[in-house]
Amino acid sequence: MENLLFKELDSNQQAQHKKWMLEAIKEAKKAEAIGEVPIGAVVVFNEEIIGRGFNIRESQHQATGHAEILAIRQANERLQAWRLQGAKLYVTLEPCPMCAGACVLARLDQVIFAARDPKGGCSGSLMNLLQEERFNHQVEVIEGVLEEECSQMMSDFFRQLRQKKKAKKKNEAK
Amino acid sequence: MENLLFKELDSNQQAQHKKWMLEAIKEAKKAEAIGEVPIGAVVVFNEEIIGRGFNIRESQHQATGHAEILAIRQANERLQAWRLQGAKLYVTLEPCPMCAGACVLARLDQVIFAARDPKGGCSGSLMNLLQEERFNHQVEVIEGVLEEECSQMMSDFFRQLRQKKKAKKKNEAK
Repeated sequence: MENLLFKELDSNQQAQHKKWMLEAIKEAKKAEAIGEVPIGAVVVFNEEIIGRGFNIRESQHQATGHAEILAIRQANERLQAWRLQGAKLYVTLEPCPMCAGACVLARLDQVIFAARDPKGGCSGSLMNLLQEERFNHQVEVIEGVLEEECSQMMSDFFRQLRQKKKAKKKNEAK
Repeated sequence: MENLLFKELDSNQQAQHKKWMLEAIKEAKKAEAIGEVPIGAVVVFNEEIIGRGFNIRESQHQATGHAEILAIRQANERLQAWRLQGAKLYVTLEPCPMCAGACVLARLDQVIFAARDPKGGCSGSLMNLLQEERFNHQVEVIEGVLEEECSQMMSDFFRQLRQKKKAKKKNEAK
């Protein structure tokens, strides 16, 4: 099983995935607004959002405070079930090992992500834990939905961060 | 880098690891007491427990409610830091992909586990995410601390579960 590519889907499917990815981007913007790396996720079930999350690692001092974990936890609470069969998760960045593992544990049907994370992504880049055949569940993956927008959001964030750090250093040197 | 084996450590080291693993077993017993699969974990920092957790998947309907995740979260809160450098995590069962990923993200120094999980363990069995060289952090692993006790605890739990199910079926058939 290989990741499906957004660009190879038909236009109806593309429109549907874009709609939900825009909701994940809204979550990412909430992270950005509090100075966090802009990553957001939503869990969709029966055409409804049942879980939302954004990166809170720095602000809440939580190593496990990734968007996907929070969105899954909220979806679990909402459905009062740890199994999220029939649900899909949209996230702006390729899941890391922890989050890919969480998606498998939650028995999600699909994970749809925007941009790849070549350094730490484990849903196609370094490995693909979502489709590891030795696990007791595999997740269908679609990648590349609003990829450019999400990549741009990340690079803008890091560029601004570098500029802020530079300005701070300059001020301290005065 | 390979997992270190408990039986190859000297007796002083063995005694120290046993002491903390007994605390992880205490957590596992709390899970068992509420009908959960008995898995427990503690995070130790400067010879003090700063995080505790036990499996709450069924009772709290949380796919991410694994012992390790809860122990790490508590440790993060306690130190008000997502980085747990210098800390070690004791857990009664080999970490799954999600939990192994969380240990890497939290920058733990060491993970010490009791029994292997041949079906889903990703800290030596199916793969070793704790020591994946392509990640930006690797965790030292010691395995086999109080292995028999923890394996026994698990098999006792599942045997009792089967017996309960059998008794229930018998009652329903009456």
